Amino acid sequence: MEVDSKGLEVLGRDECLRLLTVATLGRIGFTSGALPTVLPVTFHLDEEHIYVRTGRGSTLDAALQDSVVAFEADDFDPIHHYGWSVAVTGLASAVSTPVGLGLVHTQLPAPWANGENEAVLAISTELVSGRRTTAAPRAMQESCPS
Amino acid sequence: MEVDSKGLEVLGRDECLRLLTVATLGRIGFTSGALPTVLPVTFHLDEEHIYVRTGRGSTLDAALQDSVVAFEADDFDPIHHYGWSVAVTGLASAVSTPVGLGLVHTQLPAPWANGENEAVLAISTELVSGRRTTAAPRAMQESCPS
Repeated sequence: MEVDSKGLEVLGRDECLRLLTVATLGRIGFTSGALPTVLPVTFHLDEEHIYVRTGRGSTLDAALQDSVVAFEADDFDPIHHYGWSVAVTGLASAVSTPVGLGLVHTQLPAPWANGENEAVLAISTELVSGRRTTAAPRAMQESCPS
Repeated sequence: MEVDSKGLEVLGRDECLRLLTVATLGRIGFTSGALPTVLPVTFHLDEEHIYVRTGRGSTLDAALQDSVVAFEADDFDPIHHYGWSVAVTGLASAVSTPVGLGLVHTQLPAPWANGENEAVLAISTELVSGRRTTAAPRAMQESCPS
């Protein structure tokens, strides 16, 4: 197991992509009006792309199209400080084919807000990295005899 | 109650800052090596700044110092699609005074990874915005007579 300088397990690409398939929510980092912004999004992952909904013509839609963006998903247990994080950096582009847009109704989670007039963006997954805490959950440590 | 074009409640600054005091984890969006990145962080909020730990000399530490960064925290119920998100955009700067660094041991959550050789960064909170889903949780809707 590879461990980084902070003692976190370094995850391989396959494990990162597997973890993304079980995550509920991700966050997208992008630039809007020359300022960095992070927003939560629901998403769907296939082998090569992360798909997210945006409102057509929205700030997010305009900022993401044909831009390099950051995507992150994680799952942490705040009590035991145990969990993982996966970061993706890739090019976002509009999905415009009927087959691609079919994903909206079949694979993407239902919209949490008003889903009228929505667009779909695809984020490439060339750059993927992940970390997982390696320490045993605190409750386990405390239950072990010293 | 102010509502945006997607039907989400627009939160005022005071409510955004109150929600940040009950969040466990936030995400920071920044630029590293000319590429956008999002990473999870634990944090502490006082009235004017968000404080986060970094490893001294780490990629995060180098990328954030004296840069404008994005910070986001949220809490969502994935079953009922109910929750909130708060976004902050501000200038990050190193905390170097003994009083400021005292926060590491008193206010900031314990580090989840190896906390040796750590630094503390402060992010200003001039730009704060937030949204909350306004729909009743799905379980409540389903239990209501039509």
